[in-house]
Amino acid sequence: MSTLGERTKLALEVLRQTLEPTAILDEATLESLPQNTIGVPRSCGLLSDLELELTEQYDATSLVKMLADGSVSSETLLMAFRKRATIAHQCTNCLTELVPQALDDARKCDQFLARTGKTIGPLHGLPVSVKEQISIAGRRTNMGFVSLVNNVSTEDAYIIKSLKKLGAVVFARTNQPQSLMHLETSNNIYGATVNPRNRGMTAGGSTGGEGALMAMHGTVLGIGGDIGGSIRVPAALNGVYGFYPTVGRISGEGVLVPTPGCDSISGTLGPFARSLRDIELFCNVYCSAKPWIDDASLIPGEILSPALGQPLAPGRPLRVGILADDGVVSPFPPVRYIIDQVKDRLKNSPFVELVPFEPLDHDAAWQIISANYFEDAGADIKAFCKAGNEPLLPLTEWIINQCQENMSIVAPTMQGRKAARDAFRQRYNTHWNQAGMDVLLAPVTPSTAPPLGAIPYWGYTAIWNLLQYPVIALPAASLVENRDQVDLSHEVYSPRSEREEQMLRDYSPAAAQGMPVGLQVVAKRMHEAVLFQAVSTIERALCMEKPLSHL
Amino acid sequence: MSTLGERTKLALEVLRQTLEPTAILDEATLESLPQNTIGVPRSCGLLSDLELELTEQYDATSLVKMLADGSVSSETLLMAFRKRATIAHQCTNCLTELVPQALDDARKCDQFLARTGKTIGPLHGLPVSVKEQISIAGRRTNMGFVSLVNNVSTEDAYIIKSLKKLGAVVFARTNQPQSLMHLETSNNIYGATVNPRNRGMTAGGSTGGEGALMAMHGTVLGIGGDIGGSIRVPAALNGVYGFYPTVGRISGEGVLVPTPGCDSISGTLGPFARSLRDIELFCNVYCSAKPWIDDASLIPGEILSPALGQPLAPGRPLRVGILADDGVVSPFPPVRYIIDQVKDRLKNSPFVELVPFEPLDHDAAWQIISANYFEDAGADIKAFCKAGNEPLLPLTEWIINQCQENMSIVAPTMQGRKAARDAFRQRYNTHWNQAGMDVLLAPVTPSTAPPLGAIPYWGYTAIWNLLQYPVIALPAASLVENRDQVDLSHEVYSPRSEREEQMLRDYSPAAAQGMPVGLQVVAKRMHEAVLFQAVSTIERALCMEKPLSHL
Repeated sequence: MSTLGERTKLALEVLRQTLEPTAILDEATLESLPQNTIGVPRSCGLLSDLELELTEQYDATSLVKMLADGSVSSETLLMAFRKRATIAHQCTNCLTELVPQALDDARKCDQFLARTGKTIGPLHGLPVSVKEQISIAGRRTNMGFVSLVNNVSTEDAYIIKSLKKLGAVVFARTNQPQSLMHLETSNNIYGATVNPRNRGMTAGGSTGGEGALMAMHGTVLGIGGDIGGSIRVPAALNGVYGFYPTVGRISGEGVLVPTPGCDSISGTLGPFARSLRDIELFCNVYCSAKPWIDDASLIPGEILSPALGQPLAPGRPLRVGILADDGVVSPFPPVRYIIDQVKDRLKNSPFVELVPFEPLDHDAAWQIISANYFEDAGADIKAFCKAGNEPLLPLTEWIINQCQENMSIVAPTMQGRKAARDAFRQRYNTHWNQAGMDVLLAPVTPSTAPPLGAIPYWGYTAIWNLLQYPVIALPAASLVENRDQVDLSHEVYSPRSEREEQMLRDYSPAAAQGMPVGLQVVAKRMHEAVLFQAVSTIERALCMEKPLSHL
Repeated sequence: MSTLGERTKLALEVLRQTLEPTAILDEATLESLPQNTIGVPRSCGLLSDLELELTEQYDATSLVKMLADGSVSSETLLMAFRKRATIAHQCTNCLTELVPQALDDARKCDQFLARTGKTIGPLHGLPVSVKEQISIAGRRTNMGFVSLVNNVSTEDAYIIKSLKKLGAVVFARTNQPQSLMHLETSNNIYGATVNPRNRGMTAGGSTGGEGALMAMHGTVLGIGGDIGGSIRVPAALNGVYGFYPTVGRISGEGVLVPTPGCDSISGTLGPFARSLRDIELFCNVYCSAKPWIDDASLIPGEILSPALGQPLAPGRPLRVGILADDGVVSPFPPVRYIIDQVKDRLKNSPFVELVPFEPLDHDAAWQIISANYFEDAGADIKAFCKAGNEPLLPLTEWIINQCQENMSIVAPTMQGRKAARDAFRQRYNTHWNQAGMDVLLAPVTPSTAPPLGAIPYWGYTAIWNLLQYPVIALPAASLVENRDQVDLSHEVYSPRSEREEQMLRDYSPAAAQGMPVGLQVVAKRMHEAVLFQAVSTIERALCMEKPLSHL
């Protein structure tokens, strides 16, 4: 019988071979990597000034303009990101491979532009990274299971086809946890992705590879998936933007999942970005190709079209509710501080009206969504692990146990659990309407990045998956000036429950200092038009005169 | 132990007491009712000339104008429909009760108009009938189960609230089958609803009460439910219009179903009407109240908004595919004749282009949808029957058996059956796109109304529930002039399969003569704007210069 190491060797070999050879750190650097690796791409000396500029100074919206007007070639840009991603990977273990085909794709972009004077599409030449579970034809896709290390995809996932048609260069694939159902990123093939700002902490998950890669400026636009916080949590813990759209907006065709057909709760793809306008760019160009014609499961209309939902009334301030505490797990001082800061600034904005909002049974929300995650009580996930002769990781066991426990609490039958889900959706909708909010501002997680292996709290993110409310996670801490100078180590956190006590064990004020804090802006189902307008208003209220200043 | 008769007595008593006393047929008339009772409301002498005119000569669009300008009072109109509905019921057994509250509601409309000069809403004073499963506060709702004969609803269903807010007067509740899962209408409480044009034949189902009532001109706008053909089949077999919208358009809150939480296939409410413009009227006024604000499960946009889906290209002809035969059960001569006639006229229309279309695995579609109907393999339905100590009717057993058989064929797990559903949706979508159609024209049923108890063929309707494609069933035979003069009794039907042989046993050319034939116009999911434009174009092509001439 082969060892686990022997069975995963192929995957690690592919990863090693596809990294950019000109960006391999020397042994001395590797051995003395600091705890905070954010500065390594700059300090290691492997990137030219141009490469540093290209990867650090622009967002995707700027880069596609530069690519289109020829200020930078796609090949040059790709090489910069290949190198930086390779460095990022050596610091954080965020990649599963770089895509070999990308170099050809970039050169074709350059040749096409040179020959025709035109771009291939609105993302012409832009390097884009994707979570590994998104199939690429001819490449292996394992979604974190050892049993799939040799699973060669025969076709590009629909999102890959879309990105390519738009001219993008899919260049990197990023790490995810076993089962895809952790809010961190660890599996028995590649191991754990760590937080670039503190390698003892998690990068979040399940799209943790994207989060870490983007924090390291190793990518400028990434695609992840979210069924309980898997885009928003790594976005928040890494200080970037993440968008969880309403289910039915972005095609999931060709994206591997452990439980196909299980739709009591559905996940969706969504983008990671460094600016709100990049998320807007993604939504607009993605919809310009009308993906709903090909994918019957999609809502046949543009994500940002104001035709769906209640438009914001012109002339009146944006009505923002603030969820400072969900009543289950109170945010820790670093998160509370950011909420308070944001609240103060919104209070002073003439464009915002704060409206009171009380959480409605968020504890029940977790029971209901977790009871609905696995129709088969986790049997598929266990079968994948068994087929690969790999142990279930503790966080895989944890989520399966949560689901099983809550299945018996919520209702004995699947129909009953879905009826509870539907009833909660209606109750929350009424509650939201009564508050009279346009959007809700809430924490993404109760704390900054916790240590690897800590049991995370899904409550602040998963409730919006239960309700299918679209959410943008924004890097709130970096929008609040001077917060790194504030010492919160003496702020007291008094646990109200066993769960909070457990969370407190993983909290270290010193380790939290300077770490990213994300907040979520939440709108009602299919109200993306309202959501994007609201985030823009909120950013302005936070004095974001230079919206790219935190890049 | 009480007898079935004793247990259902209360329901029959309520029904008897709420009928309009001035419209009870005398015993002699009742005993000598003809096979075809369409003429009875006129011949029985119980209706005044005005009552005949009000119930026969107008559609809802005309009546709301007359109500608004005071040409007719709501009370007068209600009394006309109460009487005619009572007569219709005595001919076809279509009602479960008349709503006592309606008289007060009508008077309030009249008083409001007299006092303010304004209407209560766009359906001011219009009598509307509803399927019994739709709860009305303070009334009993049994959805065809004996165990629920004493189940008093505490709240109006959302659609009832909507109708009332729009000014409508909900005046009649109509019969449905045990389990709601027959394409005819029979239960152990009220018995079978029969076809007004041939009392030996079914009125279709499950919303058969509405179909029969509307054919008798006992209602002008009705609300039914459809999960496999339950609006379209009774509309077709009774010669009226029925609209099955995309799931998520019309609120089902407060509508009783045997299997709450079962959403592998979802049903939806939809209207019955006498004209296309009445269905449009319903959609527009219903959406004017923005029901999606209150009901979180709805698509937050107007049903007929062109913002969703691919709009029809202006200037080019409507592209119509024709499904003359689904490859499983061939339509019988009376249906084939109508399809041929319609096809000929569309061929000659400059506004229509016929495009070739071949069915894609409609047999598999039935296997997949029936395997997805009951997550619990019919256990809930059996439990309701057991609780009422009533026997399962043969058609209840038939559908449960179909589901159970096909569950084992399609996939052993619910997830697997839903994955098969999703895969079929994608395959059919691609197939439809390749045909390049805007809409598809298809039979609703392979035959005219079959005898009571015959095993119906769900294939022509249920596939659109599987795909969630919106459909309008239109009374095609009445749009084709002179078809009643055509003798089709010598047209040969050669069965290709056991299923067709079985269907043939229930087919009688003589009985089919003059019976309604409906056709369906089908558009892609959420493409209602296209659908309504298309039906309008098709009706014009059928030389419907006077679109109300068949009333």
